[in-house]
Amino acid sequence: MPQDHGLLILHTGDGKGKTTAALGLALRAVGHGLRVLMIQFVKSDQATGEAAAALRLAPEFELRPMGCGFVFDEWTPEDIAAAREAWAAACAALTSGQWQMVILDELTYCLREDVLPPGEVLAALADRPAGVHVVITGRGAPEALVAAADLVTEMRPVKHPWDAGIPGQRGIEF
Amino acid sequence: MPQDHGLLILHTGDGKGKTTAALGLALRAVGHGLRVLMIQFVKSDQATGEAAAALRLAPEFELRPMGCGFVFDEWTPEDIAAAREAWAAACAALTSGQWQMVILDELTYCLREDVLPPGEVLAALADRPAGVHVVITGRGAPEALVAAADLVTEMRPVKHPWDAGIPGQRGIEF
Repeated sequence: MPQDHGLLILHTGDGKGKTTAALGLALRAVGHGLRVLMIQFVKSDQATGEAAAALRLAPEFELRPMGCGFVFDEWTPEDIAAAREAWAAACAALTSGQWQMVILDELTYCLREDVLPPGEVLAALADRPAGVHVVITGRGAPEALVAAADLVTEMRPVKHPWDAGIPGQRGIEF
Repeated sequence: MPQDHGLLILHTGDGKGKTTAALGLALRAVGHGLRVLMIQFVKSDQATGEAAAALRLAPEFELRPMGCGFVFDEWTPEDIAAAREAWAAACAALTSGQWQMVILDELTYCLREDVLPPGEVLAALADRPAGVHVVITGRGAPEALVAAADLVTEMRPVKHPWDAGIPGQRGIEF
């Protein structure tokens, strides 16, 4: 297997660190001269720490928040349309030749037959050009995605400051 | 609890992503204007992707590899001296007022009575100035460190590409 085998990496589980570890991979990859695109399927906020820092790593790193925020009840037509638009952007990025790493943040959340059919997503990932690393984050990854991935880490929560009444800290949580 | 409560964050477990998630936290924190120092207790390599990328985030982010590489058998006097020098640098950084986040990469590895006595390390962490976030990475964190931490994530290996004979990829592993 050559050094330029594009890996499919999955960060799942209920703990912290899934998106954060993907950002760390982006930082490391940019340091090696790779070009990295992170598409955020859920987050819509443009004012995060990672967005500000991404500008300092441009043009090798681009971060695109394309979500509408977390959906807790019914998916509205707008939520579904945003997920599909983000997925279309992901497919274009995978085949563009422009990016050597594509991060699909919170993609797992959208893997539902009525939003992004898992079979269609898995097929597009399998058919991507050689040498393109893909990093997928999110809870509850389906078994077929785990099976397709080269590297899977479960982030398991052991202790969370919210349990102790400490609020989310700027620079840490967002 | 104010917004500027400095958290003690621990990434442990046998899976990938402990150092990588710490790098992601650094990226996010720098985006918020915090100053971040990462001291590497084990790694000695100056030519990693993260080292190259860190230069682009300077002076807000500094990465200092201060290790001698992993010790598999006996700790030599040189290994012990390097760990103690890195710890002295960490203590200086915690109290300097210069850094709002101090990352102690692979510190857990050195927490042995004959290298860095855990009691001494825990006391220094507890006594650090308010508002300084500390991120500690490494396998096998002692129970007392888990107890002292505000946020603990275990990175659990589900699947690793080495299992399938795929070698470490530049831009991913280092």
